[in-house]
Amino acid sequence: MKKIYMDHAATTPTHPEVVKAMLPYFSERYGNPSSIYQAGAEVRAALEEARSKVAAALGADPGEIVFTSGGTEADNFAIKGVAFRLREERDHIITTAVEHHAVLEACRYLEKCGFKVTVLPVDGYGMVDPDEVRKAITSRTALVAVMHANNEIGTVMPIEEISRVTREAGVYLHVDAVQTAGALDVKVDKLGADLLAVSAHKLYGPKGVGCLYVRRGVKMHPLIHGGAQEGKRRAGTENAPGIVGFGRAMELAAAEREERTAQLLRLRDKLIAGVLERIPEAVLNGHPTRRLPNNAHFRFRYIEGESVCLNLDFLGVAASTGSACSSESLEPSHVLLALGIPHEEAHGSVRFTLGRENTDEDVDFLLEELPGIVAKLRSMSPLYRG
Amino acid sequence: MKKIYMDHAATTPTHPEVVKAMLPYFSERYGNPSSIYQAGAEVRAALEEARSKVAAALGADPGEIVFTSGGTEADNFAIKGVAFRLREERDHIITTAVEHHAVLEACRYLEKCGFKVTVLPVDGYGMVDPDEVRKAITSRTALVAVMHANNEIGTVMPIEEISRVTREAGVYLHVDAVQTAGALDVKVDKLGADLLAVSAHKLYGPKGVGCLYVRRGVKMHPLIHGGAQEGKRRAGTENAPGIVGFGRAMELAAAEREERTAQLLRLRDKLIAGVLERIPEAVLNGHPTRRLPNNAHFRFRYIEGESVCLNLDFLGVAASTGSACSSESLEPSHVLLALGIPHEEAHGSVRFTLGRENTDEDVDFLLEELPGIVAKLRSMSPLYRG
Repeated sequence: MKKIYMDHAATTPTHPEVVKAMLPYFSERYGNPSSIYQAGAEVRAALEEARSKVAAALGADPGEIVFTSGGTEADNFAIKGVAFRLREERDHIITTAVEHHAVLEACRYLEKCGFKVTVLPVDGYGMVDPDEVRKAITSRTALVAVMHANNEIGTVMPIEEISRVTREAGVYLHVDAVQTAGALDVKVDKLGADLLAVSAHKLYGPKGVGCLYVRRGVKMHPLIHGGAQEGKRRAGTENAPGIVGFGRAMELAAAEREERTAQLLRLRDKLIAGVLERIPEAVLNGHPTRRLPNNAHFRFRYIEGESVCLNLDFLGVAASTGSACSSESLEPSHVLLALGIPHEEAHGSVRFTLGRENTDEDVDFLLEELPGIVAKLRSMSPLYRG
Repeated sequence: MKKIYMDHAATTPTHPEVVKAMLPYFSERYGNPSSIYQAGAEVRAALEEARSKVAAALGADPGEIVFTSGGTEADNFAIKGVAFRLREERDHIITTAVEHHAVLEACRYLEKCGFKVTVLPVDGYGMVDPDEVRKAITSRTALVAVMHANNEIGTVMPIEEISRVTREAGVYLHVDAVQTAGALDVKVDKLGADLLAVSAHKLYGPKGVGCLYVRRGVKMHPLIHGGAQEGKRRAGTENAPGIVGFGRAMELAAAEREERTAQLLRLRDKLIAGVLERIPEAVLNGHPTRRLPNNAHFRFRYIEGESVCLNLDFLGVAASTGSACSSESLEPSHVLLALGIPHEEAHGSVRFTLGRENTDEDVDFLLEELPGIVAKLRSMSPLYRG
């Protein structure tokens, strides 16, 4: 049975070139990059080269890149780091209802610690209104945290408009770019981000590494204290193989972006058109045009998205109902509920996120099998009177 | 030129068997372990197998192991997690003057946040007196943090005696076992630890992964909030290759411990005896017998340890003056100062930490070259009147 992986928003296979770049840093060039001798210095040089690659891809200075263990740590670092640092003067955080759990749970923790948190609503496509951001800002606001693109429905947020608001108000803007770095041309100045989180494993890099872009001058506390690594902003022996792999993955993403995007858009549009055409009462979730080039997220009335995924899994197709980070929860997605989609319809949602290995044949196979699966599940559904 | 690596306390080369175990989890078994489909489930199974291996090596239940990005995160998680959770009733932390920066800086941060921190002194060997711990505990004490063995001088702390004190007083004991896990037979019940930090890259596993043992029932906050991974105790997509490698490294360490330790003890004792015999005014730092089997730490009067290391580096020998985490600092080691060693003598210290690849020839080479290096540097030293 051919395996078809269509859950690239959850994670991606590490690019073979990335693994190749990482390999020497396990057992050959294994020195501690903070050590002064040659075996450390050569690894230090490789880290700094990776930092330059990541910085170049984001249009940042290398000194503004702080390597972390991934996107979730980067989000926690940004939000808690700024909040606790500015607490005395500013104890108010603004975010949106559709953020990743890494942002929402960090904010919820701050609330428990006595901070004030405003969670802004979104429209039916998952977009936040920059005017709502403006209205929510007070003299006590430290930080606005808005994701670049949503990990479930793929909607791309109007970050440039939001950053004009935060700049004017003199508050920091943190952008969770975990879904867009690598996929879109993410440039920190163009977006106007003061902080920006990236995860390597979402862009064909390894799991366990990512970074936080921290604009020069941003005041914040570390999340992880200890040694002087990362300019005293993130302690702990640097994950040298992971960081080298991350650098290579960012470089490859930039080099291959045009080609990757063209293919993804073509396959995604074919998938969306095919599903809407072949399956009755199927609806595309998220914005029709302002969406990630690889995201096709549907709701199928009367059935459970989970059952669709299990049936697809039997055929070798990996797709998901939403975020892997909350797959153990029985609650419907907070993102879909924030869009105003009723509980039972939210439960009928399935996300397909394409990647660089997907082909026309993959999409054809899915378009052939999916209508039958949905029809079969509906025939067993007490809700369906088709 | 043959390369001789003698800085295993800073980091170790990843064991080839560990790299082999990790490799499939980059590009083949790359599914997100939190995903419900087959490609996720097979990775989930590998993670749980690794968790069982780590737990078995520590004598813990798998459910008590929380994977982290390394030892520093584990220390921060333990100390801040307990402190912020118990803050209302107990806002006092006790630690020692010779802890790793990951512990000391986390405690310093807590102090800034309004906690009270007691830093206990140590004796001339770097040992803390369990009676001092007892006297320092108050009704407001939440946590005592003491390392198992010191990363610079190798002294092994009397953890079992200390845990009798903390148990009796009803306060938590956190043990930084970064230098001992893998090297000694670290068992959480025997030690009496409530929390215990381990780093994979110190025991021939990969950089960027480690764990915190959390005894069932210990009350604490997460350090990194977000998805429901690690039983809601540590969010973020699991570093599957790293965790699998960590599990394999722990397994190998247990299987090879007897053999590794016998060889290390023999080489270490040969090195110590040889240096003390051949170099005048050389002193062994740390405890003569209660020390790590791979640690030989000397001070050479009248010269700089840094210069010794640079001269050794020219000959292909990697050794260090102390912790890699503070190598950028010009201050003498806080550990040596805590032992009562004067500034200028602390500056003359060099640490050799042996590993499984070191041989008799390596030690012979060092014993042949080191006396000449020390003599040469002394001949140039204004302090030396030899």
